[in-house]
Amino acid sequence: MLSNFTFDELQIGQRAEYRKTLTEREIILSAAASGDTNPIHMDEEHASGTPFGGRIAHGIWTASLISAAIANVLPGPGSIYVGQTLTFSRPVKIGDTITISLELLEKHDKRKRVSIGCTGTNQEGKQIISGVAEVQAPTEKLALETPKLPDIKIGS
Amino acid sequence: MLSNFTFDELQIGQRAEYRKTLTEREIILSAAASGDTNPIHMDEEHASGTPFGGRIAHGIWTASLISAAIANVLPGPGSIYVGQTLTFSRPVKIGDTITISLELLEKHDKRKRVSIGCTGTNQEGKQIISGVAEVQAPTEKLALETPKLPDIKIGS
Repeated sequence: MLSNFTFDELQIGQRAEYRKTLTEREIILSAAASGDTNPIHMDEEHASGTPFGGRIAHGIWTASLISAAIANVLPGPGSIYVGQTLTFSRPVKIGDTITISLELLEKHDKRKRVSIGCTGTNQEGKQIISGVAEVQAPTEKLALETPKLPDIKIGS
Repeated sequence: MLSNFTFDELQIGQRAEYRKTLTEREIILSAAASGDTNPIHMDEEHASGTPFGGRIAHGIWTASLISAAIANVLPGPGSIYVGQTLTFSRPVKIGDTITISLELLEKHDKRKRVSIGCTGTNQEGKQIISGVAEVQAPTEKLALETPKLPDIKIGS
């Protein structure tokens, strides 16, 4: 189930986490969704000759984990994404587990908006992404069954 | 082929475009990559009862088109994504064609960084996303074969 926090329920300082591990699958899905098939993401031989030393995630994939944390957890369903700032500080490699940490920074009564501090760290605790999200918070309490994704088969 | 503009080649005012149409496929791939399977994206029945009147793209999918435009076109391969601001102004629905327009705003000699103005409009010319990207520009001229994605089959 997906449930949410309404604007009235949300409290300054409230926190949430969301975690996902990067595999080759996420890289391929991200490349297919956006059309960014750059060799730094797709081609180990090319990527190993760059300063990164190997394939890295699309930066925007890591940003999508922030978006997922907002949509799934804090405030959860019914949130409307209004804005986001992002700073990419380190690359993410296959096998890295990224923990997104959210903290509610501000509530703006007028338009039921909230500012949420967002950081992503890897399994070594090193920051790889940070920023602030602006979200129009839900006003209605929701508890929804999580839709099931269709099977996705990669490769022949 | 993917080719790039080096920092020295890039000129203030230089522009580029990148275009992609949203289908159900992009929604499913984005949901699978990030884990955001909210009904507003996945479930037409639920989404039709919301103020959006139907399923919408993940906001971060539209942001990923900005990222793809930078990675593929301006400056192209070898770019390092340093930061991004994003404002989401309208929803994107299945069938919408989004045109990302980039314009080089500033060059910063010290760290070979550039600021790029980014806007996304739909087929009616209405702005759906905007922001500014900070990119470490390539210093080496590259022309790379575009990697081929493996086949991705959705559904049984």
